[in-house]
Amino acid sequence: MASKRTSEKETAESMGRRQREISISEFFLKNRHLLGFDNPRKAVMTAVKEAVDNSLDACEEARILPEIAVELVQTAPDRWRVAVRDNGPGIVRAQIPKVFAKLLYGSKFHRLRMSRGQQGIGISAAGMYGQLTTGSATRILSRTTPSSARLVEVQIDTRANKPAVLSDTDTPWQPAFPPPPDAPEGTPPPTYPHGTEVSIEMVGQVVRGRLSVEEYLKQCAIANPHLRLHYRAIPLPRPGAPEPPAEVPWTTYERATRDLPPPVQAIQPHPHGVELGVLMQMLKDSSSRTLKGVLQEDFSRVSPRVAEEICARAGLDPKTPPVRVAHREAETLYQAIQDTKLMRPPTDCLAPIGEGQILAGLRKEVPADFYTAVSRPPTVYRGNPFLVEAGLAYAKPGDNPDLAPDDTVRVMRFANRVPLLYMSGACAMTEAMEGVNWKSYGLPHPKGALPVGPAVFFLHIASVWVPFTSESKEAIAHYPEILREMTFALQECGRRLCVYLNRRRRDAEADRKRSYITKYIPHLALGLQEILGLDAPAKTDLEQRLVRMLERSKGDD
Amino acid sequence: MASKRTSEKETAESMGRRQREISISEFFLKNRHLLGFDNPRKAVMTAVKEAVDNSLDACEEARILPEIAVELVQTAPDRWRVAVRDNGPGIVRAQIPKVFAKLLYGSKFHRLRMSRGQQGIGISAAGMYGQLTTGSATRILSRTTPSSARLVEVQIDTRANKPAVLSDTDTPWQPAFPPPPDAPEGTPPPTYPHGTEVSIEMVGQVVRGRLSVEEYLKQCAIANPHLRLHYRAIPLPRPGAPEPPAEVPWTTYERATRDLPPPVQAIQPHPHGVELGVLMQMLKDSSSRTLKGVLQEDFSRVSPRVAEEICARAGLDPKTPPVRVAHREAETLYQAIQDTKLMRPPTDCLAPIGEGQILAGLRKEVPADFYTAVSRPPTVYRGNPFLVEAGLAYAKPGDNPDLAPDDTVRVMRFANRVPLLYMSGACAMTEAMEGVNWKSYGLPHPKGALPVGPAVFFLHIASVWVPFTSESKEAIAHYPEILREMTFALQECGRRLCVYLNRRRRDAEADRKRSYITKYIPHLALGLQEILGLDAPAKTDLEQRLVRMLERSKGDD
Repeated sequence: MASKRTSEKETAESMGRRQREISISEFFLKNRHLLGFDNPRKAVMTAVKEAVDNSLDACEEARILPEIAVELVQTAPDRWRVAVRDNGPGIVRAQIPKVFAKLLYGSKFHRLRMSRGQQGIGISAAGMYGQLTTGSATRILSRTTPSSARLVEVQIDTRANKPAVLSDTDTPWQPAFPPPPDAPEGTPPPTYPHGTEVSIEMVGQVVRGRLSVEEYLKQCAIANPHLRLHYRAIPLPRPGAPEPPAEVPWTTYERATRDLPPPVQAIQPHPHGVELGVLMQMLKDSSSRTLKGVLQEDFSRVSPRVAEEICARAGLDPKTPPVRVAHREAETLYQAIQDTKLMRPPTDCLAPIGEGQILAGLRKEVPADFYTAVSRPPTVYRGNPFLVEAGLAYAKPGDNPDLAPDDTVRVMRFANRVPLLYMSGACAMTEAMEGVNWKSYGLPHPKGALPVGPAVFFLHIASVWVPFTSESKEAIAHYPEILREMTFALQECGRRLCVYLNRRRRDAEADRKRSYITKYIPHLALGLQEILGLDAPAKTDLEQRLVRMLERSKGDD
Repeated sequence: MASKRTSEKETAESMGRRQREISISEFFLKNRHLLGFDNPRKAVMTAVKEAVDNSLDACEEARILPEIAVELVQTAPDRWRVAVRDNGPGIVRAQIPKVFAKLLYGSKFHRLRMSRGQQGIGISAAGMYGQLTTGSATRILSRTTPSSARLVEVQIDTRANKPAVLSDTDTPWQPAFPPPPDAPEGTPPPTYPHGTEVSIEMVGQVVRGRLSVEEYLKQCAIANPHLRLHYRAIPLPRPGAPEPPAEVPWTTYERATRDLPPPVQAIQPHPHGVELGVLMQMLKDSSSRTLKGVLQEDFSRVSPRVAEEICARAGLDPKTPPVRVAHREAETLYQAIQDTKLMRPPTDCLAPIGEGQILAGLRKEVPADFYTAVSRPPTVYRGNPFLVEAGLAYAKPGDNPDLAPDDTVRVMRFANRVPLLYMSGACAMTEAMEGVNWKSYGLPHPKGALPVGPAVFFLHIASVWVPFTSESKEAIAHYPEILREMTFALQECGRRLCVYLNRRRRDAEADRKRSYITKYIPHLALGLQEILGLDAPAKTDLEQRLVRMLERSKGDD
């Protein structure tokens, strides 16, 4: 049949008539690879990640020790139901549809605060992908008090980027999947008086290995040692299987600590990180009545004295109403801010994982012989505070079957405690790893590649605004300030590794010497007995004294 | 001073109150690196690219032979004004503000048609970047008839993602920069009766080299041989320069052809490329009154017979009103479509550059000794028709100072005739180049890298929907179907290059032999004269016959 054709020659008018708005959901539906929904394998991983990130953020904001259960159930050969339940504060009824079925909606975008979510896209995108591939709705069960449970089924109206609610009912607490078995430490999620469960059916694939849900959750447990996490994946029974298969057991990642990360503060933007256009917008939007007030209230690190200094430098009256500042004056003000010396941004807005917790996490999940961790002090890129942490687990060759001594080392990457599994080639963390001269710390290091050895590296960036290279948040952009901090942290790990490797080499040397001693001292003693004409007890005594002397000398070389 | 702090412990209610919508402009303002505005250098290049892409699309749709002028003027040490003027059809007055100051607005997203623009983001993003960094507005001058010129100054209200019009006036045609000097071939843009000029001031940097505006425009001229293009960049006079500097001359890229690319058709989606969720949306939105009608009208390659076959396979009445098709029935319908054999999508929606034009373009801009080009037949990825073209210019070592024989070859990448300069490492084209076994075609080829030699490669993908890896449209995603076509095209170029290189080697060999002959034949003749007792004329005759004989034999080995 003939396809519908546009006329061959357009005019300004005919082209004008075809112009129309594109909704953000239509845009990302067509470009879903930008959000991490490229293929069925990655889609399941991304959906789990978005749900778990949200649960952890909510628990920490509400100061609740998080317990999360993730269940994947295969519903057809190419389909899985992804369900995640938490013991978070719950979501108020009016917000549920928009939180789960509207792209670019959330509480985290408009403030400078360290959190896992940033954009208000993730979980709605997962729902949209489920809807696209299976036509089904996102199912949310949430309660803020024991009796307030609400069950909502929602889809995205992609034309308008708004939720289409299919059902919204009061309900007893009937979760989509059974509770994991009670474990010694605490009560499983269903018996908490509050929490949220989201389930989405999607075309997906559940795999094992480096890019699996399992790996994501394992790394999540390492970077969040305060989290208790349950996981299971239930495949369809094999065709021709004789009887219903045994229940699939849960894997539980126990907590390494009951301390929540310290609460983090939202900060005001630092004047040196604000661009001219944003400054002009802030002047327009401010609730302060004077220019001085705007500078003091809406920015960090601007004292009354500094505010007056900036105004004076710009030749502006500190009492000017901010809306009256004209374009040219704003430019002068912008320049005056650049020329004024300011304290660096406050850094209590960052919650590092901490060296102790990184070590605990690594010890729990990576069997090895040597562990170390480094937390760098906070610093700043483009006005945004950030800090870098690094860790390292090194196994004795052959001890850990997952870490072959001839393979390149493994690198676990984290941003605001979220594991990054994909796009390592495009990530500043990989560049930092490759840029360090590992040979000088005792690791073989082919040029332009990762070093070689039975080791796992851990790299974490914490920031109020993590600069990702794409909406799917899989790789860190190459800011020089960030690269430098990563390099410093890795070099410190390298120096400590070097000490360990040297000691191990010395120990091996000493062992070799001792076996040498053990082997030859009897002969030596026998020779001396003959030369000096010693009797048997004197010879035995000499032999023992020789052993003691040589053993003592071992520690000195 | 103290930064404003959120309370330490949140509740579901307090968290709910903070939820709000994020406008797409706020999102991209904070994430401007996703749109190609990472740094001042790239910003200028991206702005020029977006403006030129739009001009070319508009000219081709209106079947106007394009002539475009690009002028960059430095206005402050860190600022440039980017201005681009075309002879396109002009933009109707009502559309100007939204086209230039609203993200996700345009005519190209909602149809399957080969065009440079796809998303309706680019030029508004350039304006937004200018506004962010300099606080200034985008200035647009446009006319659709000689007397309809309109001057509009517009900014983006980023909170609402809508245009804020600062001025909008009827005006005589007063362009922002003077016309390039008249050149033999035609009249420069200002005297066309229609056209559009956009100028944006931004924090920027203008550089030379592989990632420059100049390089972009040069490649643009290669891939668009029907384009006449003028360019100049006017820096600020050096401080202390004695007198006003001489006028900066224009660089003009002349046309290689006056034939516009053939008009391309918008097509309907192919049933095999449509996902379940989209199918359900199409059923809901269709203007057809029956299911059979939807299948026939809204898709390509569905004849009445095939439509009935699909309905029968799905067990659905062809006369069912499409809005009545329930979720489960839609799934059955989707499956029935997958199980039905269909013709591949139509391919008259693609306009290849063509082997002749690729050769003409390469010859014009890359001095070399050997040229070749390959246009592959159209094929399909995920329901989207596409085709790949490749070209090659190989210089004699030393002939072209830009092409060192010991460097890796250069690769020019194009998508729908638009040069791609950045992110080559992430691009499927680079992967295809590295994957071909160039050694077998006579080029040195280090493993995992580009081949080595004094050559420029040309790669072009044309599609109704080019799958880019990011909004900044700098690299092609790694679809296996696309990689395969690129590989085939490159291998064909390789085979032809191999023939050329062999011939050149044979010629060099023959030259060597000839010089050998010239050198030794007199001695041989002298020897033979002695042995055979020849007189002088007979010796000369023998000598000449020997030369002729050996020269003849040259062609045979």
